[in-house]
Amino acid sequence: MSRKPTVDDVAEAARVSRQTVSNVLNSPAIVREDTRKRVLDAIDLLGYRPHASARRLRTRKSSTIGVRIDPMRDGISGAVLDRFLHKLTEHADARDLRVMLFTAADPQDEIAHIRRLRDGSDIDAFVLTATVHGDPRIAWLIEQDVPFVSFGRPWDPGAQTPRHRWVDVDGRVGVAEAVRHLRAGGSTTVAWIGWPEGSGSGDERRAGWQSECGLSADARTHYSRRTLDDVTESTRAAAELLDLPEPPDAIVCASDSLALGAMTAARMAGLPALPVVGFDDTPVARAVGMSSIEQPLDEVVAAALTLLFGPEGDDVRPNPRNDEEPTNRLLAPRLVERRPGHLQLDATTGG
Amino acid sequence: MSRKPTVDDVAEAARVSRQTVSNVLNSPAIVREDTRKRVLDAIDLLGYRPHASARRLRTRKSSTIGVRIDPMRDGISGAVLDRFLHKLTEHADARDLRVMLFTAADPQDEIAHIRRLRDGSDIDAFVLTATVHGDPRIAWLIEQDVPFVSFGRPWDPGAQTPRHRWVDVDGRVGVAEAVRHLRAGGSTTVAWIGWPEGSGSGDERRAGWQSECGLSADARTHYSRRTLDDVTESTRAAAELLDLPEPPDAIVCASDSLALGAMTAARMAGLPALPVVGFDDTPVARAVGMSSIEQPLDEVVAAALTLLFGPEGDDVRPNPRNDEEPTNRLLAPRLVERRPGHLQLDATTGG
Repeated sequence: MSRKPTVDDVAEAARVSRQTVSNVLNSPAIVREDTRKRVLDAIDLLGYRPHASARRLRTRKSSTIGVRIDPMRDGISGAVLDRFLHKLTEHADARDLRVMLFTAADPQDEIAHIRRLRDGSDIDAFVLTATVHGDPRIAWLIEQDVPFVSFGRPWDPGAQTPRHRWVDVDGRVGVAEAVRHLRAGGSTTVAWIGWPEGSGSGDERRAGWQSECGLSADARTHYSRRTLDDVTESTRAAAELLDLPEPPDAIVCASDSLALGAMTAARMAGLPALPVVGFDDTPVARAVGMSSIEQPLDEVVAAALTLLFGPEGDDVRPNPRNDEEPTNRLLAPRLVERRPGHLQLDATTGG
Repeated sequence: MSRKPTVDDVAEAARVSRQTVSNVLNSPAIVREDTRKRVLDAIDLLGYRPHASARRLRTRKSSTIGVRIDPMRDGISGAVLDRFLHKLTEHADARDLRVMLFTAADPQDEIAHIRRLRDGSDIDAFVLTATVHGDPRIAWLIEQDVPFVSFGRPWDPGAQTPRHRWVDVDGRVGVAEAVRHLRAGGSTTVAWIGWPEGSGSGDERRAGWQSECGLSADARTHYSRRTLDDVTESTRAAAELLDLPEPPDAIVCASDSLALGAMTAARMAGLPALPVVGFDDTPVARAVGMSSIEQPLDEVVAAALTLLFGPEGDDVRPNPRNDEEPTNRLLAPRLVERRPGHLQLDATTGG
């Protein structure tokens, strides 16, 4: 036949009722073995394919996770979200969940997409990335009772609620460790290049530097810069720092893009061995032999799916109504140390 | 009410039949305006959400593209497939298609996944990446009449069939251009580092070098190496080349991972300005100031979706039965030139 075979065709071919075909597909244990075999033979013969939408309609579940994917920027800092997506798909696959991608121009557009996908029951739960101050997505998802987890914490004071499940990496702790490590290794003045004030994760990372740099408030202003997450801007900022009468002898940065700029400025200033530390341990950090602070993405993804779906179950948990169980995880990053000043031979490790 | 509202709840609240509710949702033009308004008001009031699975069941369409995502390796060469995925999601979004990800351990496992997703009617069409000689996925998809397009051509002689829609980038032409360019710039001996024989794209890229290097067959053996796609292995291979009595004065490579190794070896040999050309123009190439051959991914994705869904329609085209219209596109790559020997200031361009 040229049209797709239906359940009626199978029922006719196997000389059983529609209900029996349905039972064979959904509750085979209640069907007699010879009948079951006859139905399965008819299914094979006709090439009938039970339709997932039908099953989903019954269960009201599609077991699909939605996640936004952003346009590529410089391919450096964004690489950590690509790694996150790889890990998310791997872990989801192991739980028999699917990952569906969508794009969005801004948080409001993301909400519109989420609404459309939720309204269509195409997606059971969402994974947000890159949370910001006053994040409109979080308020909307909680209000609409859409199951979600974010990679990124709520940044506003008092915004913490058990209904917002999140996993994040403690950038403050990671940067503090890097600064301590540099000072223990002999650096006396560790400078900072970060993002403009107001970014939650950027401010946290800067706070880690501030707590361990051992500089006075005035000196901290003197030895820190804020730029967009851009290699060229960071090169300029680092060149300024290295041009000071008493230049810093190490630079820690809020991202690998910024650190690549700092490294470029150091080389231009004839200081190829100046210690520079980035954040995210991207392939670029490995390629240029730059130290960087690595986020434990396997743990992040495992924790996110456990918060959303439970430790081993396969049901989306409704948004929690109370704080009886933890609804967030703050994980520690790890400093990956490399010697600066030459290309790296172990660029294939990690990832 | 605590449970999800159903079409019956809407029908009851609007004092109409289930069929009328269905008509309002699916054929609003045939419903009287006041009735339509009453049903829509009830839908809003109750928060009823028509279930996409129900619509899909009727239309037998989910308008979803499946694509495999691989575990991250070194984060360098794989980055081109991440960029492809970003572009695919963007272009798909513009056509109101969804992208669903899955992972697979090998081609047979990928077939098993595709079968499961196809059998569930979860996915309408597949996008394959990284085609290989004797690709079992292609044979299976054609035999099963599953709509698909591959980013990567069929590599076996005689395997070309109009039922295999594909888009690829002409690596041979890209490498030939790079070799010509190096020789025009004064390089006399352009060496090659590529992958082991038998990889379709790797052999094509090597053929581009072979056609333009101007070396005898013996000299080509002398000045070429085959290694796995690994920075450390390539560093060793390049060190061997640079240690020859008459070393090459430029090296072209089948990937940016290999080129990073060649660049590392050149620096270790005290030749930081040795021209090295990679392939894929990854963020790492930009970061280390390495020339590289860029694949036009926007064009690749646009062509792939056009082959699969037509120029502006929204229906999946069944696998073509004849060769009345072209079912493949071979696109030209572009050499991105950078000066070696220093970190790059324009690392934010591209992508």
